[in-house]
Amino acid sequence: MRKDGVIYLTKKVEFSASHRYHQPKLSVAENKKIFGKCFWPNGHGHNYALEVTIAGGVDPVTGMVMNIKQLKRFLQKVVQRLDHRYLNRDLPEFKRLVPTTENIARVLWQIILGQYPQLPLHRIRLTEGEELCVEYYGE
Amino acid sequence: MRKDGVIYLTKKVEFSASHRYHQPKLSVAENKKIFGKCFWPNGHGHNYALEVTIAGGVDPVTGMVMNIKQLKRFLQKVVQRLDHRYLNRDLPEFKRLVPTTENIARVLWQIILGQYPQLPLHRIRLTEGEELCVEYYGE
Amino acid sequence: MRKDGVIYLTKKVEFSASHRYHQPKLSVAENKKIFGKCFWPNGHGHNYALEVTIAGGVDPVTGMVMNIKQLKRFLQKVVQRLDHRYLNRDLPEFKRLVPTTENIARVLWQIILGQYPQLPLHRIRLTEGEELCVEYYGE
Amino acid sequence: MRKDGVIYLTKKVEFSASHRYHQPKLSVAENKKIFGKCFWPNGHGHNYALEVTIAGGVDPVTGMVMNIKQLKRFLQKVVQRLDHRYLNRDLPEFKRLVPTTENIARVLWQIILGQYPQLPLHRIRLTEGEELCVEYYGE
Amino acid sequence: MRKDGVIYLTKKVEFSASHRYHQPKLSVAENKKIFGKCFWPNGHGHNYALEVTIAGGVDPVTGMVMNIKQLKRFLQKVVQRLDHRYLNRDLPEFKRLVPTTENIARVLWQIILGQYPQLPLHRIRLTEGEELCVEYYGE
Amino acid sequence: MRKDGVIYLTKKVEFSASHRYHQPKLSVAENKKIFGKCFWPNGHGHNYALEVTIAGGVDPVTGMVMNIKQLKRFLQKVVQRLDHRYLNRDLPEFKRLVPTTENIARVLWQIILGQYPQLPLHRIRLTEGEELCVEYYGE
Repeated sequence: MRKDGVIYLTKKVEFSASHRYHQPKLSVAENKKIFGKCFWPNGHGHNYALEVTIAGGVDPVTGMVMNIKQLKRFLQKVVQRLDHRYLNRDLPEFKRLVPTTENIARVLWQIILGQYPQLPLHRIRLTEGEELCVEYYGE
Repeated sequence: MRKDGVIYLTKKVEFSASHRYHQPKLSVAENKKIFGKCFWPNGHGHNYALEVTIAGGVDPVTGMVMNIKQLKRFLQKVVQRLDHRYLNRDLPEFKRLVPTTENIARVLWQIILGQYPQLPLHRIRLTEGEELCVEYYGE
Repeated sequence: MRKDGVIYLTKKVEFSASHRYHQPKLSVAENKKIFGKCFWPNGHGHNYALEVTIAGGVDPVTGMVMNIKQLKRFLQKVVQRLDHRYLNRDLPEFKRLVPTTENIARVLWQIILGQYPQLPLHRIRLTEGEELCVEYYGE
Repeated sequence: MRKDGVIYLTKKVEFSASHRYHQPKLSVAENKKIFGKCFWPNGHGHNYALEVTIAGGVDPVTGMVMNIKQLKRFLQKVVQRLDHRYLNRDLPEFKRLVPTTENIARVLWQIILGQYPQLPLHRIRLTEGEELCVEYYGE
Repeated sequence: MRKDGVIYLTKKVEFSASHRYHQPKLSVAENKKIFGKCFWPNGHGHNYALEVTIAGGVDPVTGMVMNIKQLKRFLQKVVQRLDHRYLNRDLPEFKRLVPTTENIARVLWQIILGQYPQLPLHRIRLTEGEELCVEYYGE
Repeated sequence: MRKDGVIYLTKKVEFSASHRYHQPKLSVAENKKIFGKCFWPNGHGHNYALEVTIAGGVDPVTGMVMNIKQLKRFLQKVVQRLDHRYLNRDLPEFKRLVPTTENIARVLWQIILGQYPQLPLHRIRLTEGEELCVEYYGE
């Protein structure tokens, strides 16, 4: 993970979304047992923080790994698709995937690299409230 | 607001809920104009922090305004009704009220005093994310 | 300060600025004694958080004290004048005033009410780092 | 509480201490019932944050309510007596008083005004972890 | 540390404890020199945050690395042994070990894996206040 | 990055500084395009948090990776050179380097190891406000 001279730069953006944990392949009883109150049919919601880490050398002219204004605008567009949305219904990615923190992180990784393939993406961290976060380094 | 010898004790509890800003008395266009992305039909969600402040003298034997364990258990029950719920559909209080932060705070005030009329309630503060909070001292 | 049925709504916006504590009416020795390292000629800087509290009844149709999108846009414009600026040189308000946290708060109060006289402004809180904040209720 | 032209300035200092909730006038059974796990004989501890608010007009020369360096040094001395101490044994003030958050706040108020009677003290806020704080305006 | 497709999930639990830095093999003078105010005989305390990171693939049915409710209950039991305790006296693990943040982290690692050997434990982070944390990946 | 039995200990210190993004090799138009509002001639400022991580085994006598009091004093001296300074003018290191977060981190790494070559330095993290941080593991 560590390379000499590499800077790991992390930028945070936030969004608010609602979701519901529900696996249609399982019975209602199984869903309730596994997901507890997250199974509630009408859903519930969170403030999410997405921290995106890029890695690279420092440009000797600009002193930056990449242009931070450009990165910020890009990430704001990425989370706009999820912000103020009900993930289960509004995002086709979650038609078949339970929108757990783990799966939202993996979907965000794919969205980010799909829209910006040359981004030197190192890691994403997705935080759901103060007690839970997941980190993902890609597949 | 200030009385000599009075301690203001604040206890925080948290919950996660989803909601949608929608006033049925108004047209869709008016709703969109007023509420913007909060009007989205499928709703969205937040982590909320409820901070309840009680005020009173300090009991000379226990050194407490009131028993803090009892207060914590009571507040956990209060937010259980809202936690992991879609406020518009799951709480009858929001059938006619838009579940804005302001109205959630007022409803919480009524729930708290309805269930615990003798609580020396001074103020409630309801925080929705890091940028917005409301405070309410009752009616 | 407390009225029945009044909601106190607080919105936070942030800005980054630099400043220097220097009172031209005093000698260099007096400036150094009073202001210590804040007197340093080239200045230094902070991230500031401005929390603006408005107070009012809740509109029975919208459920809001005032439109929160409108408040946010207004406050973003207010801090734009200070953001990424050197307060002593870039803001005429600080030609004669030492830009202490106290004076920045008072100047912000005047800017806010000067641009939006009908805003039901109750309090502003200005935070400079994690150890210091000032609150102001106007003159 | 509000006066025109008054700035409320709050300075935060931190300390770490241990304590035990025990009222010798009560039986062991009563102590256990009231204080629960806080009664444990060997004690336990917290990081405390003390936020001291002073109130006053702004000096037209310095732009400050009072000299902030002087206030910081004073508050650091105040908490030095409690920092890294077991409050029940090490502070005579808690020989007869249960060191609840409420009583620690009241004792701090007395210490502060006892050592600095002319301080324009408005409020102290004592925070014990992220879920509990008390505010006190004096007697 | 990085494997393709692996999610690192972190769950936070908190506890409050007191401790004292004291190495019986050393003289009082040496203890004082090394540990300073942490050597104080009656001890002092902190709020600790324990962040436990597990690593693994995402279950295609549940969308989770492991059941988060189960992980939370397990971690709450783990910290119950330390919560509201004086580590030096109440935990046999610290009869011979100085309860530094480093050693508490190592003991927590052993407790966690001792009680739940199949847990895909990746890292624990133990935070003592806002200025100090340690991370441990096991032995 | 991971060695058996190694503890990663992180200590945080803070400082406030001002800076300006300006690359003299580029035209004013290019500077404006790349750096936007950070190019403003009079500069602006931030509160920075420097988190320094050392890595090592735990001393069986002291229970520590290294003496934490000594580490704290050393880091306070390190940031004293930057605290309450205008980086572009006051630090010779930034005569030729744009004081981006990336470059400040690299300069801090060199200062730390230059003054304390035997420090078991693992990583530094430099945070500029709540939305941006960089991590560096050395060259």
